[in-house]
Amino acid sequence: MISRLIIAVLMLAAAALPAAADDLPSWAAGPVRTAILAWVEAVTDPGHPDFIPEPERIAVFDNDGTSSCERPANLARGFHRDYLRDMARRGEIDGEAMPLSAWIADDRQALRDFGYREAYDARNAAFAGMEVGAFADSVTAWVARNRHPRFGVPYTELYYRPMAELRELLAAHGFQVWIVTGSTQGVIRAISEAAIGVPPERVIGSFSMMEYRVDEKGTGQVVRAADQVSNTYEAKPAHIENRIGRRPVFAAGNSNNDEPMSRYALTGERRGFALWIHHDDAVREYEYDRSTNRIAALVQQKTDAHEVSIRRDWVRVFPFAGR
Amino acid sequence: MISRLIIAVLMLAAAALPAAADDLPSWAAGPVRTAILAWVEAVTDPGHPDFIPEPERIAVFDNDGTSSCERPANLARGFHRDYLRDMARRGEIDGEAMPLSAWIADDRQALRDFGYREAYDARNAAFAGMEVGAFADSVTAWVARNRHPRFGVPYTELYYRPMAELRELLAAHGFQVWIVTGSTQGVIRAISEAAIGVPPERVIGSFSMMEYRVDEKGTGQVVRAADQVSNTYEAKPAHIENRIGRRPVFAAGNSNNDEPMSRYALTGERRGFALWIHHDDAVREYEYDRSTNRIAALVQQKTDAHEVSIRRDWVRVFPFAGR
Repeated sequence: MISRLIIAVLMLAAAALPAAADDLPSWAAGPVRTAILAWVEAVTDPGHPDFIPEPERIAVFDNDGTSSCERPANLARGFHRDYLRDMARRGEIDGEAMPLSAWIADDRQALRDFGYREAYDARNAAFAGMEVGAFADSVTAWVARNRHPRFGVPYTELYYRPMAELRELLAAHGFQVWIVTGSTQGVIRAISEAAIGVPPERVIGSFSMMEYRVDEKGTGQVVRAADQVSNTYEAKPAHIENRIGRRPVFAAGNSNNDEPMSRYALTGERRGFALWIHHDDAVREYEYDRSTNRIAALVQQKTDAHEVSIRRDWVRVFPFAGR
Repeated sequence: MISRLIIAVLMLAAAALPAAADDLPSWAAGPVRTAILAWVEAVTDPGHPDFIPEPERIAVFDNDGTSSCERPANLARGFHRDYLRDMARRGEIDGEAMPLSAWIADDRQALRDFGYREAYDARNAAFAGMEVGAFADSVTAWVARNRHPRFGVPYTELYYRPMAELRELLAAHGFQVWIVTGSTQGVIRAISEAAIGVPPERVIGSFSMMEYRVDEKGTGQVVRAADQVSNTYEAKPAHIENRIGRRPVFAAGNSNNDEPMSRYALTGERRGFALWIHHDDAVREYEYDRSTNRIAALVQQKTDAHEVSIRRDWVRVFPFAGR
């Protein structure tokens, strides 16, 4: 009990530390960095009118395109493409039939024509019966074998350095950091703890339903079921409520997919804060702008929401050298 | 960063502390208390072959009948009964029609005859459209107004003292403590943090689906949807996987409802441990034995699973005086 008390006192002391001048070193001096530091200082200062008690300091980060590079294809897409291809080679699925053939060919137009919802459902169903540990092992094996086509690094090194610093800053100030992603939950969980220190229970993604079964030795196992639930757009705040049970006060996203959870963070009783990561740096990363009109409009409307221009606001983009 | 390092070192020191003689003071000296302390010491000792790394120290506790008294009716049942009765008085629902009439009358035979699954679905549907914060406020208001019929204390004081000590012991040794309950998630979450220090994100219960909407002022809100998902029997380990993403190594339950998650904890690669709380003390609490044959059989089969006889193993049952 005494040691727990000491820990609690030290955690309070850590939470009360002012944002130091060497915080966020990969962020360029300017209005966005200044706004982040000012907000963190305000909401963690017990004497400030915007103070947020520690249990309510919930921060949600989108994964692909917000925390990690998603171009030309994200980790989940690459993993599924190759795993389905191998299943087809082993004769476990028919790799010539739609929509699995389009997943294997990474033919996005064909997937769109088929219907994304149905295509995702069919992809998830192909994994039905797979034990969850075996699924995670398949993901880490894929990560170990593959490199990003342009940067030549493992997919776990594509996490943006400025966003890692931001997560660390928030965690040091008593925030719970969650990843809330449209990507497959089991894929991101397989790498998140090692890659960015976010444990599996803090990852909310599009998820396969699960089934419990007992094998002939009496061992309990959880296996993937055929059905899946998407974690995109309005489903993000709905799942945040079901899983976290509190309204976040910080959200970071990069597309309209993240507008609902960003609005949710910005419109509670506490002073919320939101960032829109805008991909405008073709030299160091990628330049693209599909499906950003809603989140851009939100950022324009709200004082505590900011556009992050990668070109302007990030001194460094990646942990590896040269970017 | 330095303060975080100090905290980490102290947490390691706390985790390495041996189980002290004054741990679990409400547990009687005997084989169960000894087994708990020996297991905790073994799995948290880095030099022991059964050592479990801290991120894998997941402990799941059932709520009703395991962590808290559930007789004659649990908190969720009392809250729903009275809230539906008030809705009927206000003319918001038809309180004369089945199955809501049976919920209001707390007529379990009528609910069983109607079909529990359909009855629970109808009960959840009555709350459709209610904002999640308003639901939580209704629960805490009910708790403030009501007392247990026999013990005369608020429902938040019905948490068993020995189980509270056990949760504290586990937390002090680096375990994550989760509540995994068949009760309504939103009900238990509304009181768990204040009552037993378990924050909402660590409560997995039977849950209402949620919907996100934006009101005319542009405020994002999450409201309850009509559908609900039960968290009972085999659904417990399935939801544990979806929410926690790891196999627990400790489980406590009191009925067959908890057999799957207890078996799941006991049959992983790590040395798991399970407790079955057996209600055999009519003097200080209640004596009842419905639906316990499967969990009793599991406890008989497994070395690291134990029956807790309330009469024999608990020196004190409740935090209030005299029991």
